[in-house]
Amino acid sequence: MEALVLEEARRIRLRPFTLPQAVGPRDVRIRIHTVGICGSDIHYYQHGRIGPFVVDEPMVLGHEASGTIMEVGDEVSHLQVGDRVAMEPGVPDMTSRAVREGMYNLDPKVRFWATPPVHGCLTPFVVHPAAFTYKLPDHVSFAEGAIVEPLSIGLQAATKASIKPGDVAVVLGAGTIGMMCALAALAGGCSRAIVCDLVPEKLDLIGGVTGVTCVDIREKSVRDVVAELTDGWGANVVFEASGSEKAFEGIVDLLCPGGCLVLVGMPQHAVPVDIVALQVKEARIESVFRYANMFPRAIQLIASGRVDVKPFISRSFPFSRGIEAFEEAASGKPTDVKVQIVME
Amino acid sequence: MEALVLEEARRIRLRPFTLPQAVGPRDVRIRIHTVGICGSDIHYYQHGRIGPFVVDEPMVLGHEASGTIMEVGDEVSHLQVGDRVAMEPGVPDMTSRAVREGMYNLDPKVRFWATPPVHGCLTPFVVHPAAFTYKLPDHVSFAEGAIVEPLSIGLQAATKASIKPGDVAVVLGAGTIGMMCALAALAGGCSRAIVCDLVPEKLDLIGGVTGVTCVDIREKSVRDVVAELTDGWGANVVFEASGSEKAFEGIVDLLCPGGCLVLVGMPQHAVPVDIVALQVKEARIESVFRYANMFPRAIQLIASGRVDVKPFISRSFPFSRGIEAFEEAASGKPTDVKVQIVME
Amino acid sequence: MEALVLEEARRIRLRPFTLPQAVGPRDVRIRIHTVGICGSDIHYYQHGRIGPFVVDEPMVLGHEASGTIMEVGDEVSHLQVGDRVAMEPGVPDMTSRAVREGMYNLDPKVRFWATPPVHGCLTPFVVHPAAFTYKLPDHVSFAEGAIVEPLSIGLQAATKASIKPGDVAVVLGAGTIGMMCALAALAGGCSRAIVCDLVPEKLDLIGGVTGVTCVDIREKSVRDVVAELTDGWGANVVFEASGSEKAFEGIVDLLCPGGCLVLVGMPQHAVPVDIVALQVKEARIESVFRYANMFPRAIQLIASGRVDVKPFISRSFPFSRGIEAFEEAASGKPTDVKVQIVME
Amino acid sequence: MEALVLEEARRIRLRPFTLPQAVGPRDVRIRIHTVGICGSDIHYYQHGRIGPFVVDEPMVLGHEASGTIMEVGDEVSHLQVGDRVAMEPGVPDMTSRAVREGMYNLDPKVRFWATPPVHGCLTPFVVHPAAFTYKLPDHVSFAEGAIVEPLSIGLQAATKASIKPGDVAVVLGAGTIGMMCALAALAGGCSRAIVCDLVPEKLDLIGGVTGVTCVDIREKSVRDVVAELTDGWGANVVFEASGSEKAFEGIVDLLCPGGCLVLVGMPQHAVPVDIVALQVKEARIESVFRYANMFPRAIQLIASGRVDVKPFISRSFPFSRGIEAFEEAASGKPTDVKVQIVME
Repeated sequence: MEALVLEEARRIRLRPFTLPQAVGPRDVRIRIHTVGICGSDIHYYQHGRIGPFVVDEPMVLGHEASGTIMEVGDEVSHLQVGDRVAMEPGVPDMTSRAVREGMYNLDPKVRFWATPPVHGCLTPFVVHPAAFTYKLPDHVSFAEGAIVEPLSIGLQAATKASIKPGDVAVVLGAGTIGMMCALAALAGGCSRAIVCDLVPEKLDLIGGVTGVTCVDIREKSVRDVVAELTDGWGANVVFEASGSEKAFEGIVDLLCPGGCLVLVGMPQHAVPVDIVALQVKEARIESVFRYANMFPRAIQLIASGRVDVKPFISRSFPFSRGIEAFEEAASGKPTDVKVQIVME
Repeated sequence: MEALVLEEARRIRLRPFTLPQAVGPRDVRIRIHTVGICGSDIHYYQHGRIGPFVVDEPMVLGHEASGTIMEVGDEVSHLQVGDRVAMEPGVPDMTSRAVREGMYNLDPKVRFWATPPVHGCLTPFVVHPAAFTYKLPDHVSFAEGAIVEPLSIGLQAATKASIKPGDVAVVLGAGTIGMMCALAALAGGCSRAIVCDLVPEKLDLIGGVTGVTCVDIREKSVRDVVAELTDGWGANVVFEASGSEKAFEGIVDLLCPGGCLVLVGMPQHAVPVDIVALQVKEARIESVFRYANMFPRAIQLIASGRVDVKPFISRSFPFSRGIEAFEEAASGKPTDVKVQIVME
Repeated sequence: MEALVLEEARRIRLRPFTLPQAVGPRDVRIRIHTVGICGSDIHYYQHGRIGPFVVDEPMVLGHEASGTIMEVGDEVSHLQVGDRVAMEPGVPDMTSRAVREGMYNLDPKVRFWATPPVHGCLTPFVVHPAAFTYKLPDHVSFAEGAIVEPLSIGLQAATKASIKPGDVAVVLGAGTIGMMCALAALAGGCSRAIVCDLVPEKLDLIGGVTGVTCVDIREKSVRDVVAELTDGWGANVVFEASGSEKAFEGIVDLLCPGGCLVLVGMPQHAVPVDIVALQVKEARIESVFRYANMFPRAIQLIASGRVDVKPFISRSFPFSRGIEAFEEAASGKPTDVKVQIVME
Repeated sequence: MEALVLEEARRIRLRPFTLPQAVGPRDVRIRIHTVGICGSDIHYYQHGRIGPFVVDEPMVLGHEASGTIMEVGDEVSHLQVGDRVAMEPGVPDMTSRAVREGMYNLDPKVRFWATPPVHGCLTPFVVHPAAFTYKLPDHVSFAEGAIVEPLSIGLQAATKASIKPGDVAVVLGAGTIGMMCALAALAGGCSRAIVCDLVPEKLDLIGGVTGVTCVDIREKSVRDVVAELTDGWGANVVFEASGSEKAFEGIVDLLCPGGCLVLVGMPQHAVPVDIVALQVKEARIESVFRYANMFPRAIQLIASGRVDVKPFISRSFPFSRGIEAFEEAASGKPTDVKVQIVME
């Protein structure tokens, strides 16, 4: 079976690769249809590691996937052959304390596709636990199914924020994850998402969503825009989705009293935080690590039409041109939000 | 000054009426522009009372209002003459315990427009506390400003539900409040609102909103629709907005495990509740009494375009034809969601 | 192996009984030390059924247990032979949606000890999943370990209430579960638990706990006591732990604005509820079904000394006198809160 | 009237001072009985300022007070002459948005006793709004009444933590506020408070409370103690009450997955925070600014016996020796938790 394999940093090959295909009683076997390329895939490609996760041996890439069920295990009842599905890439130890407490994403034993030493799904067939495989309604496309994963990160962030209907949000950073946060914040109850970046193409794209106000930070002060749109009260939620240490300067000033800062971006170094500034507003900080129980929510929001992800699926490449897809995605075109690979 | 006065049950007159016009240091004086007719106005008109609230003396009607600031008290800083505004009709004793604890709607001393013995606002000029008067953005019309009040009830219900992004909601009853609940549920984070009624015109109207699935309960089982749309899991939230005792039969069956029932409608008699059925799902019940802090949220949602209330503003009458407006509203045309009166 | 077997309604025998003893890789084998007798055990004994759960075939009784690990499965790392433990009697399907969402008690496939057709633990040795077996600190006795189960019900109720520090609670009913609710409410943050019953011996017993105010409902009005202790504001939480339909009369009057009613007792019939009375206070209702993730909390509270359960462990009988223990427990002595059976 | 006046940094005088004594319709006039000396009083004494708050003119000190009602305004109904009371020192603008939203402590216009330019209460008589004056039960002493204020800070912290019954807490710093946090955490639902400091006398004192485990950080690793007491899971809540930047090193390691860090202490400089470490645990951070609605809770907890503050009231001085009291408090004896001044 062919797979898109990261042999080592900066070297991808499309070549035969053997992955286990035994279907356990609670597993399903899936023919992969579409796989999105994630920033983490690109990071492994470029650097061979993300923090403590090092690509020591060849690893199949890819974790944002949709496909079709080919085979179901004996004890699987909610899926059948032919179902079109999206797959959650992280599988915890279901007997862990984190799972029992409803935070399965925090189980340290989670096995996550394309995170060394676990292989990803850029290959024609995979076996996956049925419990983490979700049926797509007929009118949700495979392309939409493959963007459920990054949207789930936005939804995890929006859920952590405990948005109240009509809240005003700020999103710092209009990369893919920032855009997903903006979509999720609005779908999740915000009246406005004030999205801040310095790349006009990105702002133009997200600016097309009802409720989004774009701020080109080279031209305007976010703080002024927030003050104007909230009569000086401040934003209820700020999603930090840039990962830039600079974004933290004055970030608390954007919040209203009792407001919430959600940490989505991952700065490389420790960031200085003004504790007293937080206290004067009794600000709350939430942090996000992947997602739990968000796939069904993402699928419902796409299926019902409340979230339109289509403008954010930028380009797709056939599997045979997968290496080119990676190179294109890695080149960082400002108009590329999500590049996908389609099998066959 | 002319006012629309309920003299006693079934007798309204448009006639001169004197209301206090002294502007205290924290008050504003407002020229009324638009006033919506509420079900409670109609109920007082038809029955002369709602529960313990009895119209013993002539009372000015109306409490859903927008207008323009004519005069501001000495200590008012956030409003100025000429501002277009919406007014919150209930004013609590600001030193009460309920206010200190952030539940000002529950202060038993609340003075609420057009709830005996407090006069309403169907008259050209009113004086109101600035703290409960909210500026409308330029592009929000007076008609929209006057529907902020019923939308706030829907938003209070949606807030109580603690909606998580992507939740599926059921709304029982497609009267004005049911429709406002559906709008608020979707704006507040739901992926779907399954709206149930037996009047096709009402279902057609609310069915135009993205995310709404209509159920004509004479034709289909709500339970079946919920099961189909949620893979048998159940709805996260059920808004009971009909006030009908019949709606409570089997209502818990609509909920998913851990789901929430929000009581918005006001049944006239005690309703039998199957406690064990609630327990098996660990269902939660929330109840709603008017709203607190919802006007700014409603205005933001209308202003940002996330909620479009225009389809629900059905007809308007000039003040001089106010009695006719009341009679029309009382006649209960299925296509009338909100009838409004425009001053002048 | 001997077991205490309910042959049919009203007939228990201590006789040989074979239960599976194979230890799977994630299981442990436990020598049972102490087993408490629960109201449900007694109910099965007296009536042969609880609602839809019917004792069609002989069933081993008992589900409140502590013991010592005799054998551990290959994949078990957090327990070892010789550990003293308490066992959670309900085991869900760990791949179910309810489990993933952190509500494993609501999984319809839960297998619960001594709930037909699942056998209980009144037998010298049992095999149980390690994930639902909890180590006891050295200074927590087996008797305390065996009362962790009913205390967990109280803690589930207290957790659902979202108690804020200093809340005032009312507990209706001073049966075993009512007492556990009172202990849990106080340990969980309440300043006071106003416990109401009509059996003086029960009130005397729970009245010994710091923070409990007892109300003999034949002598005093609960409402008056609540009003006096809260300056007329009302209680923040009411735990309904009597299961009596009469307890629901006027129950909302006990609550403060925004207060919470927690349904713990299980009335046999539907109970009439005054919806408008709830709404005027924006009261919230929570309901409880067993517990999830409460065993570690109960063990910590006992171990730290914050909860003293010893006064509520009334009497113990050796296993050989198990039938007598059941008869005594079923006789309902007012001073018997918890009767336990000790193996050997 | 005599008052304890801070003339300028390092100079206090007991001398005649005139404060307004007019009793408005919603005010009460109180004869002060006991006033505790707070760290902020001492800080103003030693430095003449706290951050932006500068003592430019002579200021009466003191804000932790109890006393007796001497006169009530015309509209006051819940208090009467002779009532023994505790007074909340901060009074917001009751028409502000922060008040309406239930966060009156965050109103920027709060007037707070002994925070320049507002005078404190170390003087025989004060006038105060009745809404922020709370009746003490007969068996709560004036000394206990005067410690309600610092206990309220602990309760605000415990409330922000959203403690679940049985949670394990860590308290970093055993100063007065740290001790109040420990008392509040336990009273608010924790099973354990692991209190960390390097002053043995302080640890000995707080170590006498059931549920407290003391850690002398010169001798033991907090992390090891937490791991041992939680089977390696981590603490549910960490209260940072030292204000020391050093305390933040490794602080996230103390938390369990999904745990909460509550910022109570106020470090002078920005503190570097490892964002990714927070994210991996999806940790939450809450921050505390004084308190809102905590006085009734503190009084109930003291009155019911659930919190015993008496061991923490260290010494008292008569008003005539008030300067000596300040000097003693400023000297920082390790056994002095709270020094109080008694009028007369």
